[in-house]
Amino acid sequence: MTNAYVAGVGQTKFGELWDKSLRDLMAEAGIAAIRDSGIDKKTIGGVFVGNMSAGRYTGQEHLGALAADCLGIHAEASRYEGACASGSIAFRNAYRAVKSGYMDAVLVIGAEKMTDVKTPEAVMTLAAAGDQEWEASIGLTFASLYALMARRHMHEYGTTREQMALVSVNNHKNAAGNKYAQFPNKISVDDVLKSPVISSPLTVLDCSPITDGAAATLIVSDKIKREFEKPVKILGSGQASDALALHDRVSLTEILAIKMAAKNALDEAGLKITDMNFAEVHDCFSINEIIAIEDLGFCRKGEGGKFVESGTISLDGSIPVNTTGGLKAIGHPVGATGVRQIADIVRQIRGDSHNQLKGVKYGMNLNIGGSGATAVVNIFGGEE
Amino acid sequence: MTNAYVAGVGQTKFGELWDKSLRDLMAEAGIAAIRDSGIDKKTIGGVFVGNMSAGRYTGQEHLGALAADCLGIHAEASRYEGACASGSIAFRNAYRAVKSGYMDAVLVIGAEKMTDVKTPEAVMTLAAAGDQEWEASIGLTFASLYALMARRHMHEYGTTREQMALVSVNNHKNAAGNKYAQFPNKISVDDVLKSPVISSPLTVLDCSPITDGAAATLIVSDKIKREFEKPVKILGSGQASDALALHDRVSLTEILAIKMAAKNALDEAGLKITDMNFAEVHDCFSINEIIAIEDLGFCRKGEGGKFVESGTISLDGSIPVNTTGGLKAIGHPVGATGVRQIADIVRQIRGDSHNQLKGVKYGMNLNIGGSGATAVVNIFGGEE
Repeated sequence: MTNAYVAGVGQTKFGELWDKSLRDLMAEAGIAAIRDSGIDKKTIGGVFVGNMSAGRYTGQEHLGALAADCLGIHAEASRYEGACASGSIAFRNAYRAVKSGYMDAVLVIGAEKMTDVKTPEAVMTLAAAGDQEWEASIGLTFASLYALMARRHMHEYGTTREQMALVSVNNHKNAAGNKYAQFPNKISVDDVLKSPVISSPLTVLDCSPITDGAAATLIVSDKIKREFEKPVKILGSGQASDALALHDRVSLTEILAIKMAAKNALDEAGLKITDMNFAEVHDCFSINEIIAIEDLGFCRKGEGGKFVESGTISLDGSIPVNTTGGLKAIGHPVGATGVRQIADIVRQIRGDSHNQLKGVKYGMNLNIGGSGATAVVNIFGGEE
Repeated sequence: MTNAYVAGVGQTKFGELWDKSLRDLMAEAGIAAIRDSGIDKKTIGGVFVGNMSAGRYTGQEHLGALAADCLGIHAEASRYEGACASGSIAFRNAYRAVKSGYMDAVLVIGAEKMTDVKTPEAVMTLAAAGDQEWEASIGLTFASLYALMARRHMHEYGTTREQMALVSVNNHKNAAGNKYAQFPNKISVDDVLKSPVISSPLTVLDCSPITDGAAATLIVSDKIKREFEKPVKILGSGQASDALALHDRVSLTEILAIKMAAKNALDEAGLKITDMNFAEVHDCFSINEIIAIEDLGFCRKGEGGKFVESGTISLDGSIPVNTTGGLKAIGHPVGATGVRQIADIVRQIRGDSHNQLKGVKYGMNLNIGGSGATAVVNIFGGEE
């Protein structure tokens, strides 16, 4: 079986992009990745698009064909969806298509255009990532679901509001100067605690924003890899699911899908979690990054708050997390996020990242759908 | 590389199923396929769901996790979308996951719940399969798009209204007695011509209906194939895309994506189109079946009308098409259709189909998205 590599990455600025359509965003990110790699477009055998809700946000389904069309690539083209994990799901299926020898090059585009509708509608569209019959229909938005998880985590493990706030502070600090970020401004713990409450205990600065944006990566096989500069190897990929509704899970403070996805990805890569030099960890809400750090195995269950507080996830810590700003500060165009995470990992490993780390060899991304019903983990490494 | 087989199929009745939710439909079809195969559920490594627009029809995205959840399978679970080809896209990605050795068993579910919204809203939701900015926004529904193609086909090749009507007549004849069909009633050419005009020249009986329903197939690898009775081998699969908007295509009477998808699938199978003993051909509108028959290569361009008229596609013809009723008479729950087509091919090949044919060895399905921007072809064969 061939190996697979990321040979090019690209993205649009993330933000409220009222002068650009979904089509514009997909084209811009796709072209950026094609140019970054230098590939001859004719070699591309597939266009895999990650998107959650274009049907509701923009009235457009069938995004695979649209993306391929506006890029002039008339190959296999499909859309992949798993709520906020859609981007990583598109990537994972593309990885498998290359790995299995069916294609030598696949363009993966993640995109979401969320600000063409009013905010309450955007929030209810996001609620479609949860259980419509049991959660969304009674008004449980995503902030509410994660607020329930936060309260329980505080109760069981003594996690503090300040520890959660530090997640947002770290992400904003890392976003400062990132030209792609929606909110490249530093904030303090006090800012987070004093910002308006969205769903207690979470304030607006615990929550990732509503964002327009797209990101793209080009995956290539061994056969054509040598044509590209600094391809980054895909070492493993894992995906798992759990109950869609929060109340059906075994625990409110643990996301089993993360554990399963991480185990599968690490097993495929033949690596341990301690081998990772840095990570992109899904932080749609501050509490989610804390739970995810625990369930990935960077620290023990219940110790995520202290782990953040200790500075271990800072740029100069032992396991820098979200080195470019995370969902919180770069923005969270749902279907784009997983692909943006991967693009940032690739840049770190090949050495041209914002906040470039030194001597990094292995990185992983964790992308979550809904309140944890879907988790996808991908692991990357530099060439020996 | 392992081979891949369909070891079980299942489906719900197709129709206006007001007493069943999308969740109910996915569960019913999934359980039917699991029971049909006799597989131990724990062996299933993935749940791949084909669906076009649950977000708009029912307020629920994230269907992969939902389907896996209600079946109690906490494995990889994602949704795949390419408008009306969504079911075959889920199947194709699942086929590749098994073929590449990542999984030994994948459950593919196609589903759509379309009658929870009023008909005009259902029609505009379907229009999201076309180009939103250039087609849907100016009122070009799918009946209108296919009406344009029909008029041009009549103009260029002398195709007649009667020939188109015969497509619907043949499909309804084949659906008679099919317990899953929404409209298992015979109709005449006169019925079609005298039924209300939807978009001239197409009348309501040229158009497939709005339908609720789900279908499922279980794909297994060589490793576990022997545990199942009469598995049907997947011989090849092809997918291609073309311009999303009809006006951007080279021709109004030719669907290039069909030609490319069919070539890829036949090449992988090592077969010719003349090797097929029967076919499931996407007939969202009568004209589409005529164009598809031509572009698949069953007859020459422009001769599809005469081909239908000659009776070649009847049950006793040389290439029976839509032997169980097609989209027109079984119904067209968009995301379910491709999987339903495949389930019907599997039943024909293993010998327990409605309108069972004799001595069939090879069958193919063609599933189309939008007005032809996406085409997927899968080819199946009995064991030697």
